[in-house]
Amino acid sequence: MKNVKYAKCVKCGKEYEATPNTTTCTCGGILDIVYDYDYIKAHFTRDDLERSQEWSMWRYRPFLPVEADSAPTPLRVGWSPLYRADNLARELGLKTLYIKDDGQNPTASLKDRASAMAVVKAREAGAHTIACSSTGNAASSLAGNAAAAGIPTYIFVPSRAPKGKVAQLRIFGATVISVDGSYEDTFELSKAAIEKWGWYNRNAAINPYLSEGKKTVTLEILEQLHWKVPDFIALSVGDGCTIAGAWKGLKDLYAAGFIDRLPRLISVQAEGCCPLNRAIMTATPWQPMEENTLADSIAVGVPRNADKALQAIEESDGLVVNVTDDEILAAMRLLGRTQGVFGEPAGVTGTAGVKKALERGILDPDATVVSVVTGNGLKDVANGIKAAGEPMLVRPSMDELLKAFDTNGIHP
Amino acid sequence: MKNVKYAKCVKCGKEYEATPNTTTCTCGGILDIVYDYDYIKAHFTRDDLERSQEWSMWRYRPFLPVEADSAPTPLRVGWSPLYRADNLARELGLKTLYIKDDGQNPTASLKDRASAMAVVKAREAGAHTIACSSTGNAASSLAGNAAAAGIPTYIFVPSRAPKGKVAQLRIFGATVISVDGSYEDTFELSKAAIEKWGWYNRNAAINPYLSEGKKTVTLEILEQLHWKVPDFIALSVGDGCTIAGAWKGLKDLYAAGFIDRLPRLISVQAEGCCPLNRAIMTATPWQPMEENTLADSIAVGVPRNADKALQAIEESDGLVVNVTDDEILAAMRLLGRTQGVFGEPAGVTGTAGVKKALERGILDPDATVVSVVTGNGLKDVANGIKAAGEPMLVRPSMDELLKAFDTNGIHP
Repeated sequence: MKNVKYAKCVKCGKEYEATPNTTTCTCGGILDIVYDYDYIKAHFTRDDLERSQEWSMWRYRPFLPVEADSAPTPLRVGWSPLYRADNLARELGLKTLYIKDDGQNPTASLKDRASAMAVVKAREAGAHTIACSSTGNAASSLAGNAAAAGIPTYIFVPSRAPKGKVAQLRIFGATVISVDGSYEDTFELSKAAIEKWGWYNRNAAINPYLSEGKKTVTLEILEQLHWKVPDFIALSVGDGCTIAGAWKGLKDLYAAGFIDRLPRLISVQAEGCCPLNRAIMTATPWQPMEENTLADSIAVGVPRNADKALQAIEESDGLVVNVTDDEILAAMRLLGRTQGVFGEPAGVTGTAGVKKALERGILDPDATVVSVVTGNGLKDVANGIKAAGEPMLVRPSMDELLKAFDTNGIHP
Repeated sequence: MKNVKYAKCVKCGKEYEATPNTTTCTCGGILDIVYDYDYIKAHFTRDDLERSQEWSMWRYRPFLPVEADSAPTPLRVGWSPLYRADNLARELGLKTLYIKDDGQNPTASLKDRASAMAVVKAREAGAHTIACSSTGNAASSLAGNAAAAGIPTYIFVPSRAPKGKVAQLRIFGATVISVDGSYEDTFELSKAAIEKWGWYNRNAAINPYLSEGKKTVTLEILEQLHWKVPDFIALSVGDGCTIAGAWKGLKDLYAAGFIDRLPRLISVQAEGCCPLNRAIMTATPWQPMEENTLADSIAVGVPRNADKALQAIEESDGLVVNVTDDEILAAMRLLGRTQGVFGEPAGVTGTAGVKKALERGILDPDATVVSVVTGNGLKDVANGIKAAGEPMLVRPSMDELLKAFDTNGIHP
């Protein structure tokens, strides 16, 4: 990999050769992939992208830690739509808002970006099996992307994972272990099993390549904005890998001269599970928390990528906002009604945070904001119904319809 | 619309001016939009498409019945991925198979193509409200595309509609009327209500523009194949609009000189609800049937677009195949395991038909086949679980994991 220098521990600074099997530092710290931006600058420009016909995350290969001869993955991951969200901006009282709908990925979440990367690195490592633990989306994205590539998977999910995600895993032919415990229990069991059987490790944070896949979301956003840098990018935060990846992508673009300034991040967590935001708000080291939120994808009491995430929020001079479950459900309705975008609870948490930050006066209404929807609402239909309610039921007659309209206060 | 001549009844041949509000013929027949192919040929070529940067169904505007100054719809509809499905082809013993994953549309089904068209035509008609009845996907796609465009919707669905589709409708802010009856009952109630309140009519078949939106699926397939015509295109069939639209797109390309021959269609219906295939198999007029299949999207006992669909199958010298519900569930597992594509039951019915046609020896294994997946499996998670089963549940300990693997015959 001519564009990659080495992997470096974010805790102790120790450097490692970036091999496909590289995981964490001996000190326990998470590794970060360090690039040779002089090399990248000499070989990759915005003009190259303008000529590119590769409409997936792999259009950014020169920014990605993959071997030159590695084949891309079969499913079309990335290049999800960025919508100018004028209807919603108007309701929020915000000047300019964009929605990046990453629920429009093959398995319907942003995690496809990381899993596609994992599949490429597993192939480079010559691995025959890939495993991970996940609250759901990393799991289903790995199962789908690996199935398409013909690689078997072992997947550990907490038993609370929503049915949609579990159905995906089973359909994709993964061996699924539903763990009767918390995400932390699930993670530890997967870790022990991965060590025992030597599977390729797609656990978030442990594998330093995953956030490099995730960073393609911000590479795309900036290209879709024709390199006009927004003031803020809002993201929901659980394990911390997504916001860390998003920041990495922005720093890459800056270092390679694609953009001339950096946006600020908005880190949004659920009030019932906000260890990272709490650490920033109280200026103390992060502490584990209970996992009390219906937004399963970000119900992470022991975030695996705390160091990188906290660094990202701080470096970007970011905002931190916590939202209640009710605010999350309201954001599901709001995004659906105004923009026709159906996000899962964690998928709309970023948008719920934008709303709250505006209400609290900590976000300038004249700002340009991009809010990333990280997962599709179809993955968690129970909470969709919880947010929006059941429809009216009528017998097939006009009289019954008129009565039902009347009862429900509907006047066509 | 300089590219459109008029609308013509497929039954009696009567011609009508193609206005945005045009519905059916006075004889009750369905209308077909007739184009001026000389005009299209003079103004649109394959080279134009090569230069186009519009990666949505609207890249085919010169083939579409919309006014030159009509704005496209906000959501990104179309340009779904076409995957070369070598893993699945190998298992089926078929030489060349492609999967067109139309579940990768904004509301996760092919129906987005028709609903985006409906939104444009409703705007052209100056309508303030759009209504339809649907087994689910037409409904959720209309609700989503209309919400993004700021247009209210009234939607009638049979109460059997899967939860995922109902959740979408509610989240998109539609007024949803769940009808305690069959699809036919639902349709009739919507018809009466549309007449009463004068809403814009997005009912399949009744509105002749919808299949013009749907035809973009075959325009895309052929462009994605670099105009190399496949031998067969397989589709699930319910109301008949999708297969009629698919055929219309192919005929457009042929008439405009984009392709030099036509593929044959494979019409796949559920054994428990196959009025159109039965008509072809028995060479008799079609008769209503019960709606006995778990593939809700094609559980249509009284197909609204029978004439166009039957014409399409016959003109193309098509194959007709009926599949059982078990074969549909098996196809869900097969597509997921081999290609990482999760389709809803009706979404995979085309692929189930390809498998059966090969087994029956009526499809040449040397043929090149495209199978269209019309909707995402996340819309109907209950049937996903039914197809693939629940995962094993273990307590978080290695001993428990070893026991569970042993019980389930798993040897990592």
